[in-house]
Amino acid sequence: MKRTTLSLDEFLEGFKTKNRSVLARAITLVESENPEHQALAQELLQKILPATGKSKRIGISGTPGVGKSSFIETFGKFLTAEDLTVAVLAVDPTSKVTGGSILGDKTRMNELAIDPKAFIRPSPSGETLGGVSRRTREAMLLCEAFGFDIVLIETVGVGQSEVSVAEMTDFFMMLLQPGSGDDLQGIKRGILELVDMVVVTKDDGDNKLLIQKARHDYEQALHILRHEGWTPRVRTCSAIEKTGIDTIWSDINHFYDDQDNQIKNKRQSQLIQWMDQLVKDSLIQNFMSAVGIDQINKFREHVKSGKITPYQASQELLKLFTK
Amino acid sequence: MKRTTLSLDEFLEGFKTKNRSVLARAITLVESENPEHQALAQELLQKILPATGKSKRIGISGTPGVGKSSFIETFGKFLTAEDLTVAVLAVDPTSKVTGGSILGDKTRMNELAIDPKAFIRPSPSGETLGGVSRRTREAMLLCEAFGFDIVLIETVGVGQSEVSVAEMTDFFMMLLQPGSGDDLQGIKRGILELVDMVVVTKDDGDNKLLIQKARHDYEQALHILRHEGWTPRVRTCSAIEKTGIDTIWSDINHFYDDQDNQIKNKRQSQLIQWMDQLVKDSLIQNFMSAVGIDQINKFREHVKSGKITPYQASQELLKLFTK
Repeated sequence: MKRTTLSLDEFLEGFKTKNRSVLARAITLVESENPEHQALAQELLQKILPATGKSKRIGISGTPGVGKSSFIETFGKFLTAEDLTVAVLAVDPTSKVTGGSILGDKTRMNELAIDPKAFIRPSPSGETLGGVSRRTREAMLLCEAFGFDIVLIETVGVGQSEVSVAEMTDFFMMLLQPGSGDDLQGIKRGILELVDMVVVTKDDGDNKLLIQKARHDYEQALHILRHEGWTPRVRTCSAIEKTGIDTIWSDINHFYDDQDNQIKNKRQSQLIQWMDQLVKDSLIQNFMSAVGIDQINKFREHVKSGKITPYQASQELLKLFTK
Repeated sequence: MKRTTLSLDEFLEGFKTKNRSVLARAITLVESENPEHQALAQELLQKILPATGKSKRIGISGTPGVGKSSFIETFGKFLTAEDLTVAVLAVDPTSKVTGGSILGDKTRMNELAIDPKAFIRPSPSGETLGGVSRRTREAMLLCEAFGFDIVLIETVGVGQSEVSVAEMTDFFMMLLQPGSGDDLQGIKRGILELVDMVVVTKDDGDNKLLIQKARHDYEQALHILRHEGWTPRVRTCSAIEKTGIDTIWSDINHFYDDQDNQIKNKRQSQLIQWMDQLVKDSLIQNFMSAVGIDQINKFREHVKSGKITPYQASQELLKLFTK
């Protein structure tokens, strides 16, 4: 049975009364590709915009197996125990294939999933990372307007998804597990430079020595690539022994206290970047659908084999577009 | 007096007879913004395309004061002494301001400038880095077709110019001088990851100790960010003592022997990237000139102040474009 959507007023009323199911339906609305839903979604976003911006936006990246779910579960429970409300969202470019691999199975976070102070939402599916990112950004705004203190946005870090999460959050942390092929050499180019904190997971039992070494290596690397302003921290934690989370949280608070102005500026440039990116994406998308991938590939082949110069090919393609 | 341009046949004839002044005029032709010259330039490029691809394409970056001219002079003379012909080109985004700061003054390279086996061409001027890069790429093709064994492309590394040079060369080296504020922390984000070799300059006199430490630091950093396949080398040299150049050259040869297939693939993807980039640049340029920077800035301000969402702003801007 197809559910009819709520009206704008019903959505706004639901937000006022903190009705979780209305939040869930609002997120479904922004995720919908139906043009009518999209129009309503944009109206809703416009209405709630003044109420956004009050949450701490924290990005969490980590490859599968690093212990990301356990970390988010432990961290999330820590936060709700501090009487904070937490929304967990995801940017997962693989979800179009698997039908939602991140957070798709809420049982990965047993306790957090049933915590009344927490709200977990699986990754939206979508054809492009751009589409997935946009929906997650919009879901973030909805969660903020709804009143969540913290929004955690997780990603598996496939392709550009880490960059994308770093570009929508204030604080970007990367989870790493040493000795699992997940050491520094395994980190994709450019990612370490986005990182505000590295968290070395599974700091328990026999791992302790290995982890000390890893921590030292990461600190060295982050020092080499050090950012202006905030010096990225390297912390360790154990979901089993429940250690390390308090330090991580106090670092994050320190970051927010210390970098107040920078965060404001960062958010403003993120907004402008986002607008610019959406314009570029649309221009390219319009070009692609007008010219067609077959034509483009044909010219790519000609260029690759040295038949024509890239400049000539680009001019030909643009002629096809403006025609 | 305005020189009339040569005909296509005259250009081709000049290339056949290795007439240097014809090469110089061909480069002037690709640099010209006159539409008739551009049309002829594209015809010429199309004709000479099959003769390109045989040179070693080497990118050299370094901030002013690092000893780049001395290095290129010494390296260039070393190569011509090995009976190799060398063309030196430049991508210099600052040249529009200063009227050609890189290589503008050939006397910086006294000996190389009068070496019959060498050809030095100052950076083209241009409004955009994209324009400057395109002209340098096309000049590179002309030099290749003319028969130069080596094409050196230098840049001061302002803004994106290093990325741009790395994207048109096979082998990208960065010159660094320790103790001059030019240490690792001064390297722009992401650049170290493009580098195939770091050359520490001025390894002579009192510098030797400082340089050993710098070399170790750079090796560490490159190890952390190591590329697949080729491990970037850190070498030192002295233009005064004429040391280090032979090792650098033997490394470069080793790179070409070792990475034959990778270079072939790299060049093909560079071509396609280049075509894609030219298409994107043109699309954005068309958008910008149709909508106007004032409108775009107006929407940026609205987005920045939280009046509308980036998505809504992008849709409004695109409406203005397609209107």
